[in-house]
Amino acid sequence: MLFLGNIQPDLQREVRRQCDRARLVGLDSMNLWIETTRDSLLAAIRDVDLLFLNDSEVRELMEEPNLVRAARAVMELGPRAVVAKQGEYGAALFAGDRFFSLPAYPLETVRDPTGAGDTFAGGFMGYLASRGEGAAGDEEELRRAMTYGSVLASFNVEEFGTDRVQRLEREEIDRRYEEFRAITSISTAPASEKQQQ
Amino acid sequence: MLFLGNIQPDLQREVRRQCDRARLVGLDSMNLWIETTRDSLLAAIRDVDLLFLNDSEVRELMEEPNLVRAARAVMELGPRAVVAKQGEYGAALFAGDRFFSLPAYPLETVRDPTGAGDTFAGGFMGYLASRGEGAAGDEEELRRAMTYGSVLASFNVEEFGTDRVQRLEREEIDRRYEEFRAITSISTAPASEKQQQ
Repeated sequence: MLFLGNIQPDLQREVRRQCDRARLVGLDSMNLWIETTRDSLLAAIRDVDLLFLNDSEVRELMEEPNLVRAARAVMELGPRAVVAKQGEYGAALFAGDRFFSLPAYPLETVRDPTGAGDTFAGGFMGYLASRGEGAAGDEEELRRAMTYGSVLASFNVEEFGTDRVQRLEREEIDRRYEEFRAITSISTAPASEKQQQ
Repeated sequence: MLFLGNIQPDLQREVRRQCDRARLVGLDSMNLWIETTRDSLLAAIRDVDLLFLNDSEVRELMEEPNLVRAARAVMELGPRAVVAKQGEYGAALFAGDRFFSLPAYPLETVRDPTGAGDTFAGGFMGYLASRGEGAAGDEEELRRAMTYGSVLASFNVEEFGTDRVQRLEREEIDRRYEEFRAITSISTAPASEKQQQ
């Protein structure tokens, strides 16, 4: 598995070429490369499975102000899924015609957002790496990967640098995963509310 | 039940005074009143059950950059719950020490966002009005109210003015409610991932 961190896209393409047997390839980028080396970035994106990008950058990349349409345009280039990072608002996943959205964990103290996006991608790719071959093609697994990424990122921003993540215990990760499930859970509509057939 | 729409806070207080037997009172406001009539707005907020406000305005109102702390400070004034509206990112609910977050519905075409916040509040209050006395104190019911508010708002922005909402069918509402449940659903972590006890 290969994660191409946010660097000059020609370098990403060269690393991609060297790792031609990777079973899953993710790529992160930023507005700088969209604005200075767009063609090379588009070529790099054509050759990966997953694109991680801030939501405003997904729109900028595809020159399409609507995020749903912009994500679809990215998938027409090649990637099977697009993760639109939304900072304090969480992240959205587009995979084929399916959509999933996850809020950020509600923290009272955010000390240092540096590295949140990379920690998210690390948790996301790391979870898929721990699973079988077909995990990246399974929507349920992609949602879990989104959740693990968000869990890890939420710990990362609690302290400066890597302090919090370095002393993180597995049990803390499991607990926060369950908290994410709880804060996003919606009950079915009560029967009395639904249309009387 | 009483919903105090976004107007000058002294007028909201006067309407509130006239409706002293309302069993549930919601209030919406905006940055203009925070900046020009803050004391009167705070007095109005002290006397309502639910505050609806854009998330940046919750922070501005309480002069607290962290949304979790700002929402808690609002609840210390009186309201039992705070709905922080987040535009294209959805909405967050704070009720006591509980948190719930809901994305906006992923629309390919947003024609007119005018009235989205009021439609949200209408769906939210309308759902609670259709339920029993204790609904506003029941977290599950508040989450459903958030979801109905988001469903209604998502239809409202699809066309100009009230065109879309006026011809809305109950069955469309029910279907989109279920879609909201689907796009936010996270499976439990696989057993193999959890800490080995």
